[in-house]
Order: sequence, then C-alpha cells, then structure tokens
Amino acid sequence: MMQFGVPKETVPGEARVATTPDVVKKLVGKGLAVLVERGAGDAAGYHDDAYQQAGATLTDAAGALGADIVAKVRKPSTDEIAALKQGAVYLGLLETCEDDGTQAALLAKHIQVVQLERIPRTSRAQSMDILSSQANIAGYRAVIEAAAHYGRFFPLMMTSAGSAKPARVVVLGAGVAGLQAIATARRLGADVHAYDVRPETKEQIESLGAKAIELDLGESGAGEGGYAKELSDQAKAKQQQLLADELAKAHVIVTTALIPCRPAPVLVPEEVVERMREGSVIVDLAAANGGNCPLTEKDAVVVKHGVTLVGHTNYPSMVPGDASAFFAGNIANLLGIMLDNGDDGPVLKDLDEDDITQAALLRAE
Amino acid sequence: MMQFGVPKETVPGEARVATTPDVVKKLVGKGLAVLVERGAGDAAGYHDDAYQQAGATLTDAAGALGADIVAKVRKPSTDEIAALKQGAVYLGLLETCEDDGTQAALLAKHIQVVQLERIPRTSRAQSMDILSSQANIAGYRAVIEAAAHYGRFFPLMMTSAGSAKPARVVVLGAGVAGLQAIATARRLGADVHAYDVRPETKEQIESLGAKAIELDLGESGAGEGGYAKELSDQAKAKQQQLLADELAKAHVIVTTALIPCRPAPVLVPEEVVERMREGSVIVDLAAANGGNCPLTEKDAVVVKHGVTLVGHTNYPSMVPGDASAFFAGNIANLLGIMLDNGDDGPVLKDLDEDDITQAALLRAE
Repeated sequence: MMQFGVPKETVPGEARVATTPDVVKKLVGKGLAVLVERGAGDAAGYHDDAYQQAGATLTDAAGALGADIVAKVRKPSTDEIAALKQGAVYLGLLETCEDDGTQAALLAKHIQVVQLERIPRTSRAQSMDILSSQANIAGYRAVIEAAAHYGRFFPLMMTSAGSAKPARVVVLGAGVAGLQAIATARRLGADVHAYDVRPETKEQIESLGAKAIELDLGESGAGEGGYAKELSDQAKAKQQQLLADELAKAHVIVTTALIPCRPAPVLVPEEVVERMREGSVIVDLAAANGGNCPLTEKDAVVVKHGVTLVGHTNYPSMVPGDASAFFAGNIANLLGIMLDNGDDGPVLKDLDEDDITQAALLRAE
Repeated sequence: MMQFGVPKETVPGEARVATTPDVVKKLVGKGLAVLVERGAGDAAGYHDDAYQQAGATLTDAAGALGADIVAKVRKPSTDEIAALKQGAVYLGLLETCEDDGTQAALLAKHIQVVQLERIPRTSRAQSMDILSSQANIAGYRAVIEAAAHYGRFFPLMMTSAGSAKPARVVVLGAGVAGLQAIATARRLGADVHAYDVRPETKEQIESLGAKAIELDLGESGAGEGGYAKELSDQAKAKQQQLLADELAKAHVIVTTALIPCRPAPVLVPEEVVERMREGSVIVDLAAANGGNCPLTEKDAVVVKHGVTLVGHTNYPSMVPGDASAFFAGNIANLLGIMLDNGDDGPVLKDLDEDDITQAALLRAE
C-alpha cells in the first residue's frame, strides 16, 4: 500500500503542517496509507486524535520521512533528507537560491522532488499553487498587522465628537499578496491606493475598489509566467522619484515586491519614511530579502522616524490553521495528478508525463 | 485672559492627551490662552511644534496644571491635585469607585470638577460624552486585536486550494463598544452574532448585519440612563446556561459587559472556554473589573485550554491619535456650554445653570 508521510516541521517558529485531518480523510479514501508524525499539527490547531480519527497512523519523524511520498512545508534539512527513503517522492518548497547542497543530496538518493516553487502559474495548476495560496494569506495578515500597529482608525468614523478620516493605505505590488492586501484594507474601510509596474493590473486594482497609481516609467515590468520582472536602473530611479510623493502621503504602506532569489527593490527610501506622518506603518513583505524599505529589520517590529516598520517574514505561519488547510489542499490536488488507480490501490505515474510535475521536477543541472 | 491648561498624562502606558493642535486652534480662536505641557502629545503623534503653530504656549507640568481650566484624560494624582490652582475648573474622569480621597482633595481646594463619567447620556450631551467616544474606539480596536490573535481568517475565503469559512464572532453586550465591535467584525467579513440583556438592542444589532442571540431570561436588563442594570442571580444563571451553547460554537468572543464600579459579570465560564475550538480568541473588555471570563488576566494575553484570552484594559490608548482627537473634541464641546463671550474674552458661566454641567459637577456628599 502506497504511503504518504507528513513529518512535523522543524524550522523554529513554523506553525504550519503539510496536511490536515480533512485532507487525510480524502487521501485515505483514495487508498493511501497516511503516516503523520505525532504532534505535527499541534501548532496549527490540528491534533493527533483528529488525524487518527481521519484514518492516519501516528508515527515518529523517521516513520513519516520514510514513506513512499513525503510532503513538507519548509526546506528539508540535511537530517530530514538523510531520513528519506531511496527513490521516494518528495513534495515541498526547496527555498534554495544558492547551491547549498540540498538539491545534490536529494538527487544522490534518487528522490523524485516535486519542487513546489516550480509549479507553473497556469490555470490548470492553480489549485496546486502553494506560492499563491500562501501569498494570499500573507496579504490578508499583513493588513491585520498594519491595523494593529496603526495609531488611528482604518475606516472613516463619524461621531458627535468629530470625525476621523479613513486611513490612506498604499499597496505596492498587485500580485496575489498585494491584491488580498488591497481587498482586506478596503474591507476595513481604508482609502486604498495601489501601484504595480505591470500596467495591466490597473483593472484588478480598481475592481477591488482601490485607486491605481499610474507612473510613466517608459517601460513595463511585466515578466514571463505572471511574475514581475526586474526594471532597468533608469526606470527604477524614475519610479522611486514619482512614487515618493504618493508614498509620503500614505498612513499605511504594504510592500509586496519580493522577487525570488533577488535582493528586494528599494521602493520606500528613508527620505519617504522621514516625510510620512508620525504613527504611520510600513508592513514590508519583502523583509526576508532585504526589504522594499531599507529601514525594515527582518523578523522585527521597529520604529524609525516615528514610523512603525513591520518586518515579519512568515505571515502564513501567523494564520496557521487556514494556511495549513490551503497547503494541504494544494498537496492533495497535486497528488491527484500524480497517482493512478491500480488494482491494489494508487500507483505513481511517470512524473514526466504531466506538464505540471514535469515542470516542477528537480533534475541534475 | 482665561487659561486652558493640558498637562502630560502621568499614568504609565497612557498614550492619549486631552487636546490636539486642531482643537487648540479653535480654542485660541475663541479667545482662550492655551497652555500645553511640553511633550504632552508625543505618544499620540501630536508634537510641540504643532501645538505651538496652533497658538498654544508650551509650558511645564506646573504651568499647565496651574491654569484656570485644566483638562486631563486620566485620574488626577495627589501631586496633580496639589498643583491645581485654588478655585480652578477641572475637566476629567475621576475613575474612583471607593473613597480614595480624590474627591475630598479636589473639594478642599474648591476646584469645580466636571466629572466626565457623569455627563448625562442625553442627545444634547452626546458630543461631550467621553465614555461613549472612547468605548467606540475600544470596540474597533478589540476586533483588530482579535483578528491579530486568531489563527485563521475572519472573512470567507474561496480559493482553488479550498475555502475557509468565515470566523464565527460572538459579541456580548451591544452598548457603544459592542456595536462598534459588531460593525468592525462585519467589515472584516465575519459571521457575527451578538447578545445583550436589553431586548431593544435587537434592531441595532440586526441593522449592522449581525444576528441577535435571543435568550428567554424572564426579566429585562435595561437600566436607567441607557446603562445595563445588573440582573438577578436567577436570571444570571439562566443566561449563562443558555449562552454557553452559543458561545462554545464561537471562534472569537468579544465581551463588553463592564458595569462601572462593579465586578464584571461572568458570561464566559471556564467550561465554555474548554469547549471552544483550539485557536479561538476571547477579547475581554471587562478585564479591568475581573473580566467577563474568569480566565482573563488583566493587562496580559494568555493561552488557556488552547484559547487566547486578551486582557488589555486601555484600548483607546492603543489608537492614541484618534482617541485623543475625540477626547479633545468632547472637551471642546463641553467648554462650548461652559463659557460665555465677555468683553475681554470668554468668561465662565455658573455651572449649575446648564443641566449637563449641573449633573456632572462634583459636590460634597
């Protein structure tokens, strides 16, 4: 019987888990033997008894990592790779930009790695797109964080003691995280403005009730596969200059310009922070890559020039219940295209035969 | 020239200030000399230069407290009372339930104290009602706090990876704070239910898009002057029993049953907390008076039975910019009925002549 294993995450502070009891139930129904490490879902609010009731077998780390197919949220450690079975299938984010040996170690054990960063951004693959599902959560949570740090109201408040104007929120980047940040800030009643280098985002921004900031840069920032591409130095300088006045008027800025494996572009320079009203908030979703604001400190909340800079780098883990449910759903959808029904239960397909797994499969360079 | 003085608040952690530059400008325009202690507004984001530009004179604590009329946010300390001028007017909350000598000390100096807790809840006095303006802020901020501690989404999220149901939020008490909590949770897309002992609140609850929880207690909790009155022991027991099932289903509970100078009624007993889903949140606005949940710890955030209990006691101070603006607006409106235009600027009226100041004026018992 084909085994699907989910170990407990080992990165400090990571509260997510790669499967949930609801998803376990589905997978067991399809004939998989599901092995879950004891306590794997505790931090996300999913407990051993719930996994067991759903049909999982509780085991230790070695048991979960030794399954035929293993799924994990965060980058596999050296110890975790060592515990994988020769020739097993691994589903996860590799989170590697430089060659740190992770890929080689996995390939040396002939592990078939479906690298979740490489799931194509096609409509068929959307239900397996973990980067999108987690970015969506980050966009929501970033705005809740902004509201919690902002010394005023988000919505317009008309009271007999006077009225408070709605917060002016500027969202930089209208990708998945940015659009959800816009939607959440609009829900809270803020006056939302958004900017993206890709002019075609204007319509999406406006459909959420926000105003699109338009700057004439002389070039477009639309890249391949739905990702933003890096702008030329000249266009970047012009962008900064034109944006500065818009940003200085903002009470809350949410920046989402995170380009994988690249230093984050500086969109909110120090002089803009200096010009912002005291008590304003910048939530910098690119804090892990140096920040869209150079004053952001990774994994910290700091106040500079009277502005609170929020530099958390793992928002999905701050909403671990739903983030794990979405992650688990993505993985279940991915398993759906990887497995065939054999006579004795599910059997693994040739992963090169489906364009999604083919694109995401790790190979020797 | 009649002086209006605003000292810096001295209660630790208090970020509000009793006046803002905008209000100073109005008061100066009416002919008052406004004295503001240096740094008084710093924590709320209102700085000395802004007060000065608005026409205030910067001074020290003794200067501000020595004015003809003094306004303060928090209870006056012994030192502050000592610094008041004989026969001056003091506008503030006294925050005294037991006789701690505050009243006697003020009366001994013949201070005319307009006790802001005693501003009647009439429509004419609404624009001076500091308890309402600050409760409104508390209701908003309580829900932001809940969203920041809740391990899931507030709104319904439909994604290709699955959907997250909206959070079920129960608000206990539909006074000013409760109604604003309902409105804010609705803005965030939660499924909101609310309960109040006063059946006439049903319409208000429903007008905000929430569902009114109806329990048959055999008596009404509507008291005089728009406040809730304390229920009989029998009605309380029945209320708890009927509420328990509603509450156990909630993912977020915001309790607002704070009766001035009384221990807070227990509305969320420990057995309800035990039955709630792990990762749920209780924001207990009655934490200062023992809490509507006995597990709440004053001024702390704790996790018990897997539920996060938020026990902050000063939400307005967490939104100090707008809270101070509303406070300052209330004070300006109050000054509006206290002062007449004399030949040489404003003169104080007989405070017994207006029913608002007459009701709020501190007197020897």
